Amino acid sequence: MAKKADKYFISDPWQIIEEAFNPRYGEVAESIFSLGNEHMGVRGYFEEGYSGASLIGNYFNGIYEVKKQKVSSYKGIVDTTEFMVNAVNWLYTRLRVDDEVLDLNRCHFNDFRRVLNLKDGVLTRSFIWITATGKKLKLEFERFVSMKNVYIGAQKITMTALNFDGEITVISGIDFSQNHKSAEENFWECSNLIAKDNYLSLTGTTKNTKQKIFSSCRFWGSVETQENVLDKEKIAAKSFKIKLEQNKPCSITKMTMNMVLKSDNREGYEDFCTRCEAAEDNSRQLNYDVLKEENAKWWQDIWAHSDITIKGDELNQQGIRFCIFQMFQTYNGAEEGNNIGAKGLTGEAYNGNAFWDTEVYCLPFYMFNSLDAAKNLLMFRYVTLPDAKEKAKSLDCDGAFYPIATISGKESCNLWQHASIQLQASTGVAYGIWFYEKITKNRSFLIKYGLPMLIEVCRMLATRGSWSEGRKKYGYYGVMGPDEFQMMVNHNCYTNYMGRLTLNYTLQVLNELKAENKENYQEIISSMELTQEECNEWAKMEEHMVIPYDEQTKIYEQHDGYFKLPHIDVDAIPIQDFPLYHHWSYDRIYRNDMIKQPDVLMFMLMFNAKFPEDVLRNNYEYYEPRCIHESSLSPSVHSILASQLKKHGEAYRFFEFATRLDLDNYNRNTHEGLHTTSLAASWMNIVYGFGGMRSDGSRLSFSPSIPKAWEGYSFRVGYQNNVIIIEVNKETVSFQTTEEIAVMIDVYGESIELGKEAKVREIPYEWRG
Amino acid sequence: MAKKADKYFISDPWQIIEEAFNPRYGEVAESIFSLGNEHMGVRGYFEEGYSGASLIGNYFNGIYEVKKQKVSSYKGIVDTTEFMVNAVNWLYTRLRVDDEVLDLNRCHFNDFRRVLNLKDGVLTRSFIWITATGKKLKLEFERFVSMKNVYIGAQKITMTALNFDGEITVISGIDFSQNHKSAEENFWECSNLIAKDNYLSLTGTTKNTKQKIFSSCRFWGSVETQENVLDKEKIAAKSFKIKLEQNKPCSITKMTMNMVLKSDNREGYEDFCTRCEAAEDNSRQLNYDVLKEENAKWWQDIWAHSDITIKGDELNQQGIRFCIFQMFQTYNGAEEGNNIGAKGLTGEAYNGNAFWDTEVYCLPFYMFNSLDAAKNLLMFRYVTLPDAKEKAKSLDCDGAFYPIATISGKESCNLWQHASIQLQASTGVAYGIWFYEKITKNRSFLIKYGLPMLIEVCRMLATRGSWSEGRKKYGYYGVMGPDEFQMMVNHNCYTNYMGRLTLNYTLQVLNELKAENKENYQEIISSMELTQEECNEWAKMEEHMVIPYDEQTKIYEQHDGYFKLPHIDVDAIPIQDFPLYHHWSYDRIYRNDMIKQPDVLMFMLMFNAKFPEDVLRNNYEYYEPRCIHESSLSPSVHSILASQLKKHGEAYRFFEFATRLDLDNYNRNTHEGLHTTSLAASWMNIVYGFGGMRSDGSRLSFSPSIPKAWEGYSFRVGYQNNVIIIEVNKETVSFQTTEEIAVMIDVYGESIELGKEAKVREIPYEWRG
Repeated sequence: MAKKADKYFISDPWQIIEEAFNPRYGEVAESIFSLGNEHMGVRGYFEEGYSGASLIGNYFNGIYEVKKQKVSSYKGIVDTTEFMVNAVNWLYTRLRVDDEVLDLNRCHFNDFRRVLNLKDGVLTRSFIWITATGKKLKLEFERFVSMKNVYIGAQKITMTALNFDGEITVISGIDFSQNHKSAEENFWECSNLIAKDNYLSLTGTTKNTKQKIFSSCRFWGSVETQENVLDKEKIAAKSFKIKLEQNKPCSITKMTMNMVLKSDNREGYEDFCTRCEAAEDNSRQLNYDVLKEENAKWWQDIWAHSDITIKGDELNQQGIRFCIFQMFQTYNGAEEGNNIGAKGLTGEAYNGNAFWDTEVYCLPFYMFNSLDAAKNLLMFRYVTLPDAKEKAKSLDCDGAFYPIATISGKESCNLWQHASIQLQASTGVAYGIWFYEKITKNRSFLIKYGLPMLIEVCRMLATRGSWSEGRKKYGYYGVMGPDEFQMMVNHNCYTNYMGRLTLNYTLQVLNELKAENKENYQEIISSMELTQEECNEWAKMEEHMVIPYDEQTKIYEQHDGYFKLPHIDVDAIPIQDFPLYHHWSYDRIYRNDMIKQPDVLMFMLMFNAKFPEDVLRNNYEYYEPRCIHESSLSPSVHSILASQLKKHGEAYRFFEFATRLDLDNYNRNTHEGLHTTSLAASWMNIVYGFGGMRSDGSRLSFSPSIPKAWEGYSFRVGYQNNVIIIEVNKETVSFQTTEEIAVMIDVYGESIELGKEAKVREIPYEWRG
Repeated sequence: MAKKADKYFISDPWQIIEEAFNPRYGEVAESIFSLGNEHMGVRGYFEEGYSGASLIGNYFNGIYEVKKQKVSSYKGIVDTTEFMVNAVNWLYTRLRVDDEVLDLNRCHFNDFRRVLNLKDGVLTRSFIWITATGKKLKLEFERFVSMKNVYIGAQKITMTALNFDGEITVISGIDFSQNHKSAEENFWECSNLIAKDNYLSLTGTTKNTKQKIFSSCRFWGSVETQENVLDKEKIAAKSFKIKLEQNKPCSITKMTMNMVLKSDNREGYEDFCTRCEAAEDNSRQLNYDVLKEENAKWWQDIWAHSDITIKGDELNQQGIRFCIFQMFQTYNGAEEGNNIGAKGLTGEAYNGNAFWDTEVYCLPFYMFNSLDAAKNLLMFRYVTLPDAKEKAKSLDCDGAFYPIATISGKESCNLWQHASIQLQASTGVAYGIWFYEKITKNRSFLIKYGLPMLIEVCRMLATRGSWSEGRKKYGYYGVMGPDEFQMMVNHNCYTNYMGRLTLNYTLQVLNELKAENKENYQEIISSMELTQEECNEWAKMEEHMVIPYDEQTKIYEQHDGYFKLPHIDVDAIPIQDFPLYHHWSYDRIYRNDMIKQPDVLMFMLMFNAKFPEDVLRNNYEYYEPRCIHESSLSPSVHSILASQLKKHGEAYRFFEFATRLDLDNYNRNTHEGLHTTSLAASWMNIVYGFGGMRSDGSRLSFSPSIPKAWEGYSFRVGYQNNVIIIEVNKETVSFQTTEEIAVMIDVYGESIELGKEAKVREIPYEWRG
C-alpha cells in the first residue's frame, strides 16, 4: 500500500516554515517544532495557552512515573510499567489586552508565521492579534533550549502595538499542573516556592518515583509593575503590566533553569540542593543574546561534521536536515546514562521508552557523528546492567537479559510475548559493543565496560537456549525475532545468528585479552567468576548453533518451519485493514508468512560483508514481497539493500518518504510525537544506502550510487579522528578529509588512502544503473 | 512426583464423617460438606458464624458479576470477565446464651461430629457447647437443599439444655452482606424487605449485571417472642427467645425459597414477580419432614441407576460415591441453560466458569446416568450460539467460536493465548452432539438443535484454518491444543483431528437428512443460508486436513515440529518446582517436549475404536513419560488407556487418588472448592478404565479388569431405556439389566444380548494380568 504525503510545511533547505495556521495540523506542528537538548524537550505548543487541540508536552530524559498492574499469577511477567512523565511547562504565559485573553483558537489574527531554524535551533512565531476592540498588536515569540548548558531554556516575547497606545498584561511563570495526557492525570507535587523580584522557583516531585525537577525563571524587560500570581496550585507566575507605545517594540525575556534529581541517593540529593540554592544567583548571569549566539555556534559545529546536502531535491534536503537536527536534539551524549525513547522527547507515545532500536538503528548515526554520544549510549546499558541481571533472574536465566522497553533500566513492557521472548535487546547490546570497538579500537572501554556486559549476556544466552537431538543442535525456542508477526517460534534465524555472534565475539575478546594482558584477564575472570568450563560450553553452543538455511535456494529460513507457513499475498490486503493491529484479530496476524519488518535481512545488513551478493539477492527477493513494513524502520533497511543489489528504482521508492516521514505526516500519527528512531534510519538510508557505506568489514567502504532525481549529494562521516566528506554527482565521487590524518577506505572494492597524502580524491562514478 | 493424601475424614461406605473439629481443615471441610441442587450451592460453613478462617459461600447457577479490564488496543481480546458471585447466605444464624455468642473459634465445645449422608443428602452437625458460666447445651444442626423443588433450602436447629433451665436467643434470617471473597467486595443491592410474623423476604440485585435473587424464609418452632432485627444493611433477620428446659430438646426450623431472575427480559421479569408475590403464601405449605423424605427418595432413585460398589476397598468406595453424589448436586439437568463450573457450586476458584471439560469430561457421565441432563447441557450451547457467533466475529471468523471459559455464554477468559487460539471448546460441542446422537439416536434433537450448531462450528473451522502448499494441506496455525504447555503451534494433532471429525460429521448429517427428509433439509439449508459450494469446500478441507503422523513409529506428532523439541526428563524436575506456573518463568514452560495433560492420547480415547492396539501402545508409551499431569483431569485418561493396554499396575497407580482427590486434599487446594470436572473423570476412570467400557463404536462394549486390591466391584449404566448392572470379581463378570428390554453389547470383543432373553449373563473374567 502506498503511503501518501499530507504536506503542510513550506519547503526550504535550512528552515521548517509554517505560513498561516491551520488548526487541523496543530498537534502535528507541535511535534515538528519540538525543541530539545537531550536533557529536556518541549513541544512546539503555543505558550500563551490555546483552547483547541494541543499537547502541552515537556519531557525530561530519565524523569518518569510508573503504572502498577495487577500482579500476574504467572512468574516473570512485569507488573510495573514506566512512562516519561509530562513535566513542567516553563514557557507558561498568558497575554491580556483590555479584557481579552489571547487564544488563537478564539481570537482574530493575521500574518501567522512560524519558523524553526535548523542552523541555530531557534523557533520563532509571529502574528498580528486583532482584538475585539480593533486593537492590532504584533507579537513575536522566540524560544530555544541551550545545547551547552542543558538546564537552560529561553523565551522572548516582543510586542508591538500597531494602532494604539495602551497596556498589556503578561502573566508568565512555571506550570507543573499539566496532566500527563495519556493517563489523564497529573503526577506532580509541588513545594519550595520562591518568589522574588523578577525571579520565581518551584520544585516538583513525582508522586510515585519521587524524582524532582527544580524549575526557576528570571525575567528581563521594561515592565510597569509586577505582581506574584501564586493562587493556583502547582503554578508559580508573575503578572506584569507593560506600557505599549504605538510602533515601539517592547520585549519580555524569560530564562529558566530546570534541574533534575533522578535517583534518591544521598550524594545526588546534596548536589541537587546545592545547585538549586545557587540557581537564583546564577540566573542573574544569564544573557539571552549570548546564549543564543553560543547555540548558533554549537549548531555550526554540528553541521560542519554532520551535514548532508542534496542538490536538485529541496524537499529531501529539508527532510534530511530536519532528521539530523532532531537526532542531535534528542540525544547528543550530553549526559551519561541517557537513552533515546521511541519518540525522543517529543510526545507520550510508546511511553517514552527506549527499545533495541537504540543500538541497532541509532548507534550507527552517533558512531559516525559523535563518538562520545555513542559511548554514552553504551554506558546506559553498563549502568543498568544490574537491572538486566534482575530481569534475567525473573526469567529463570543467568546473566543479563536487557529490557525490550525501558526508561530506568528495568523492564517496562508488560506484554510477556515481547518482554520475555525477544532476545534482541540483549544481543543488540553485544552488537553495539562489537561495533564501537570495530570503529574506535577503544580496547580500554571494551575491557572495562564492554566485557562485563558481554559475559553477562553470554550467560543469559547459555541458559535461555536449549540443546536438541542430544547435544547436536543449540538454539532458542519460544522466541520472537525482530519480525513481530511471528510469535513463539523456534530457531529464529536472527536470534540464533546474533546469539552465535555474541558468544563468538565474547570468547574472542577473552582470548585476545589473555594473550595481551594476562593479569588483567585473570582479574576479570576472577571478578566475574568465569570458569574455563563455562567458556568451553559457550564454544560448543556457538559451534552447534542452528542457522536455518536452504542450501539449494541459498535462502535463510526465518525460523524453523517458516517455509511451510500459509502464504499471504500482502499486496492483496485491502488498504482499510491497515494498521493490521487495529483491524485484524490479534491472533490472526501470527499465522502466515507475512512479516512486519526485516528479520533475516536485518542481520544480512548488520553483517553485510559476510554474505555474497547472490545470497543477499535471493533472500531479498524472497523476503521483501512478504514484508508489509508496518514498522517505520523497515523501508530504510530495504532501501539500503536494494541499492546494494543495484535495484536503484526500488531503493528510491523505499527511500521516498524516509526523510519526510514526520514532516509530511505519512503515518498520520506525527501528532503523537516524532518517529525518532526512524529519523536515524533515514540517515542510514542515505549514508549506507545511496552512499553504499559499510562499517562491518575490516575497513570503512563505500559504493555510492545516486538517485535519478538528484543532481548530486554529499555526506560526512567522522572516522579515525577525521571527517570524511563524500560528494557524489552523476560523473564523479570525491572523498575529502577535514584533517591531515591518513585514513584508508575502500571505494567500489578498491583501497584508497585519504588524509595525509591526498586530502581530496576524485574518482569516476561507477554506477551504471 | 507422588501426591500425598492429607487424610482427615473418617471412612464409611455411605457417609462422610468428621469427628472432632480441627480448624486447620475448616475450609477444606466447608468444600467437602457442600450441598447443591444445580440451582444453588452452599458450602458447609458454620451457619452460626465463625471468627476463624471460613468461606461463607452461596452460589447460584448462572448468577454472576463482571469485572472490566482496560480495553486492549489489540482486536478480539476480551475486556470483561464473568465470575459466579457469592450470594445470599440463607442459613444466617446467631445463637446467644447469657452474654455469650456461639463461635466455635472462641467457645468451649465437646463431642463435635459432622456427617454428610450420601443416601439422603442431609448434612448434620452436633456438639455440646459449654458456656463460660458452665452451662452445657447440646446443639444439632441439620440442613439440606431440595432436589425436586430446587428453590428450597431447609435448616433445622435442635437445642437441648443438659444441665440447666434457661433461655437462648436465636437470630436467624437472610444475609446478602457477604463479600465475594476473591474480589473483597460485596456486589448486592437490597430492596423490598418484607417482615411478617414468622416470615421474612428480601430481594438482592447485582450491581453490574442487575440479576436478582428473591430470598424468603419462614420459621417454625415453639418460641417465646420474636422481634425483627432489621438494622443491618443487606441482612433481614428475626430474633427469637426460646425457653429451654433441662434435657428437653427444642427445635427451630427455617425453610427458605430462593428465586432468581437471570436475564432482564420482560417475560422473565413478570414471571419472577409473580413467583415472588406467591412466595409468602406458598411457604406456609412447606413441611420440613415431607421435603426431607422426598429428598431421600430422590437420592434412592439416583443410587438405583448410578451406584458404583467396590468390595474390599472402603476408601475408594466412599470416594466414588462422594464423586457421584457431588456430580448430581452440581448438575442433574434440573433447568435448561445451566452449565457446570470448574468448581461446581462449591467455591470461587476459576470464577465459577465452565470450560470445554463440560462436553469432554462431564457429558459421558450424564450420557449414562441421566439423558435429560446430558441434553440440557448441550442446550446450554444451543442457547448461547449467538454469543459464540459474536465471539467468532470478534476473531475475524465466520460461524461460531465457543468460549474457552464462560458463565453467560460470552467469552470470559481475558488471556488471548487461551481464548483466541484454543479451538477445543467449539470442536467439543460438535463432539457432544455426535456423542449424544450415537447413544440416543435422537434425530429430532440432532436436526433441530445439533445441526445449526454443527454448521456454525464448521463455518468457524473453515475460516480459522489455512491452506498451505497451494491447496494441498489444510489445518490450524497458531493454536493451543488441550495440552496447554505448547502455545502458538501449527497443526496441533488434536485440533486438526477434531476439526476433521466435525467437518466430516456435519456433512454426513446433512447428506443423511437430504436422503431422509428433503423438505426438512431444504428448510434448514435455506434458513442457515448454506450453499453447496460451502459444503464442497468443507469436504476439501476435511480431505486435506493434516494429521501429523510418523508411519514408521506409528506415533502421532502432537504438532508440527513437536518431535524436534528439546527433551526434558520430567521426573528430574525437583518437587519444589511444582506447580510449574508459580515457579517457572511463564515463557519457560513452553519450550520443550514436556506436556501438561493428554493431547494426542485424548483423541485416541475419545475415538478409541479407530486406533489399533499397537498404535495406541506406541503413542501411550511415547507421550505418558512426557506428561506431568498438572491438570487434575490427566491421570484418569492415562489410567483408562493403561487398563486397555493391560498395564494394570500403572492403571491403578493413576487411579489411586482419583476418587479421593478432594476428600484427601491431594492437591492441597480443596479449600477453594471441589474439582468438579475431575469428579466426573474419576467416574470415567472406573467405568471406562477398569470396566473397559467404550461408547464410540457401533455398540456399547466392555472389557472389564479388576484391580488387585479389590475383591469385586459393580457399576451401572443407563442405556437404551435400560440400566445395565455390571458386576466384576476375580472369577466372573456378570451383566444384568433392570428392565426386560433387549440390548446388545460387546464383551471382550464378542456380542452378547441382554434384557429380553437373558436378564443376567455371567461370563468368566478374562483378564490375565
